[in-house]
Amino acid sequence: MDYLPESVEALIEELTQLPGIGRKTAQRLAFHLLKSKADSPRRLAQVLEVVARDVTFCPRCGHLSEHGELCRICSNPRRSESVICVVETPTDLIAIERAGGFSGRYHVLGGSINPLEGISPEDLTIDGLLGRVDEGGVEEVILANNATLDGDTTALYLSRLLGPKGVRITRLARGIPMGSDLEFADEHTISRAIQARTEITS
Amino acid sequence: MDYLPESVEALIEELTQLPGIGRKTAQRLAFHLLKSKADSPRRLAQVLEVVARDVTFCPRCGHLSEHGELCRICSNPRRSESVICVVETPTDLIAIERAGGFSGRYHVLGGSINPLEGISPEDLTIDGLLGRVDEGGVEEVILANNATLDGDTTALYLSRLLGPKGVRITRLARGIPMGSDLEFADEHTISRAIQARTEITS
Repeated sequence: MDYLPESVEALIEELTQLPGIGRKTAQRLAFHLLKSKADSPRRLAQVLEVVARDVTFCPRCGHLSEHGELCRICSNPRRSESVICVVETPTDLIAIERAGGFSGRYHVLGGSINPLEGISPEDLTIDGLLGRVDEGGVEEVILANNATLDGDTTALYLSRLLGPKGVRITRLARGIPMGSDLEFADEHTISRAIQARTEITS
Repeated sequence: MDYLPESVEALIEELTQLPGIGRKTAQRLAFHLLKSKADSPRRLAQVLEVVARDVTFCPRCGHLSEHGELCRICSNPRRSESVICVVETPTDLIAIERAGGFSGRYHVLGGSINPLEGISPEDLTIDGLLGRVDEGGVEEVILANNATLDGDTTALYLSRLLGPKGVRITRLARGIPMGSDLEFADEHTISRAIQARTEITS
């Protein structure tokens, strides 16, 4: 293309590397940055620089953190140490935090076991999780892996490792999502929901 | 929120300023930048810095340019100076360039006349356009304003100013878009297409 300045082309090219951003969206974003107040691209550049420099993983739970320190959840003394919720990614952690109601700690695995993609147990932070349980004080581990084949495999693998340690091992309930029509639920979900049906106590 | 490092929060916040990017998408983009190779946020930061520093408007046509120089179209000697295509924004210019088939120059107005939003003719680069026509050598001005009320108003305004200068003034044809079903075209488009029907010459 020879109708845009090279620096703008470079910006569009870099934006198309982001997930879900095609050429047209990247172009729209680039023009928005150019059109808005003059310091808009610079401000975004600055926060990116800070993120690139400061963000690390929490040495304890694997969540996002800064300067190699404990993350904001591990360093929060009001969170219970007796329950660890195991999730695949920081995004899953955020989803649970947003739902509210959980006041324990987390452990971020960094993915799920997937031999086809070359992700073996050694690539996940499983050793760290076992170490935390061995330290004592943990009463329950909630396996909040995704409800996918990989997630189920990983949860099964973890439950075998954790079983001998004498902690309670639980997993998230499966069933019909709140507010959804039965008509649109898939058959696996419905059959799981029937198996796990609960008593109505009035 | 107290479950993410502040620098990551700042990045998400900055990304939500972009058009069409909500909190969830911003989060996904931020995590992608963090997850991918360590230099990814830094690389994006660098191209943004360059754009903030170097990008200017072409002093001749109003398109995007660098260091206050002529844009890549105005400085291209192979482009005909006798036809100027007037567009509202650089995005419109790109759309026409991508379609191909136009080898003249452009003039980017910077918007359309819209009294309700406080955009008057003085806010657009109309003086520059008239100056270019007065310099001579221009035979035709194509008014490629958007097919909206504002675009039509602006085109009408421009045609009145350009009329006395003795140049040919044209506008883009209106009609049924290529590849689209008549059934789904709106009534204005259909009535314009009937009015502007063309002879089939076999």
